[in-house]
Amino acid sequence: MEHRADDPIAELVSLLARLPSIGERTATRLAFHILAADREYAAALGASISNIHGRVLRCEICGNYGARARCPICEDPRRDPHIVCVVARVQDLVAIERSGSFRGRYHVLHGLLAPLEGVGPDQLPLEGLVRRVAEEGIREVVVATPLSVEGEATALYLSQVLHEQEVKVSRIASGVPHGGELEFTDQVTLGRAFDGRREI
Amino acid sequence: MEHRADDPIAELVSLLARLPSIGERTATRLAFHILAADREYAAALGASISNIHGRVLRCEICGNYGARARCPICEDPRRDPHIVCVVARVQDLVAIERSGSFRGRYHVLHGLLAPLEGVGPDQLPLEGLVRRVAEEGIREVVVATPLSVEGEATALYLSQVLHEQEVKVSRIASGVPHGGELEFTDQVTLGRAFDGRREI
Repeated sequence: MEHRADDPIAELVSLLARLPSIGERTATRLAFHILAADREYAAALGASISNIHGRVLRCEICGNYGARARCPICEDPRRDPHIVCVVARVQDLVAIERSGSFRGRYHVLHGLLAPLEGVGPDQLPLEGLVRRVAEEGIREVVVATPLSVEGEATALYLSQVLHEQEVKVSRIASGVPHGGELEFTDQVTLGRAFDGRREI
Repeated sequence: MEHRADDPIAELVSLLARLPSIGERTATRLAFHILAADREYAAALGASISNIHGRVLRCEICGNYGARARCPICEDPRRDPHIVCVVARVQDLVAIERSGSFRGRYHVLHGLLAPLEGVGPDQLPLEGLVRRVAEEGIREVVVATPLSVEGEATALYLSQVLHEQEVKVSRIASGVPHGGELEFTDQVTLGRAFDGRREI
């Protein structure tokens, strides 16, 4: 490319290429698309990205994103206040909402325990969860952190922290996914599928 | 999703989803990534997108993008001034530059003839090309518009317009691409490969 250091297109391409799953070729295509599109669109997209941190608040109760101090889910009187689902990220909350499989409220950790990376219990909003359990009459905490090493460690830690309180702590099931072929399922997942077997 | 109309995340997702090859699911992932990333990155990316139209100029000679009135290629004395390659889009110029197969200059049409969509000769910078041929001592115009109906029509029109002048007008070759299997090559391409055969 005949781009020079002060080239605004090259600058835009390199910024776009820092997004997940956007390689330099895709970033180049996106940059040219933005240039070919009308100015109003570029202005709206640019402003939306620039301002997103200032406009999105973390719910003071559960940590979910929203435009107000409390998120729509915490404000929704139809949600069951006695059961809380703990997730690592807001994306996971969105996925669970999309599935329609949970009608309680949430607690978003915005991370997982990762001692090797310096993320200990103090870096996660666990105190808030303990307080909610004590104050909100919560009867069950469903831990829906990922089925990874860090997700499991965080789930174990939570069960220990909440052990003193009168609350059931549960973990989402692990097993062969819907439509999954046993032949191509990894050993750990198969092991969990057998450990978690239920009478039918 | 529990998003409301005034939700800045939903707004960002819908703007991102207007980019080519970005579906709503990818747009959601990108939006959450931007939210989780540091504010400085979001500010830089947003400003880069907002300002791109104002910062990128079209070269007054060839129409290529650049930060100055004349693009780096037109300013480069090592480029052959006697041969000009006509392309539909700056992306095509970038692809040709990447291939290293052309050392002349360019003329970017920023479009193709498309009478059904209201794009006639007056909407393309063809006068500029005719003037360049007359004034710059250009000996050959290589038409590298796409091998599509519109690209071929534009190439044909250019050859007619330039017919009066003492300039050779050529068309890039069409045929089976590098590594292409004859078995899976479409009929039109195979026909062109035979029409364009050369003695070896």
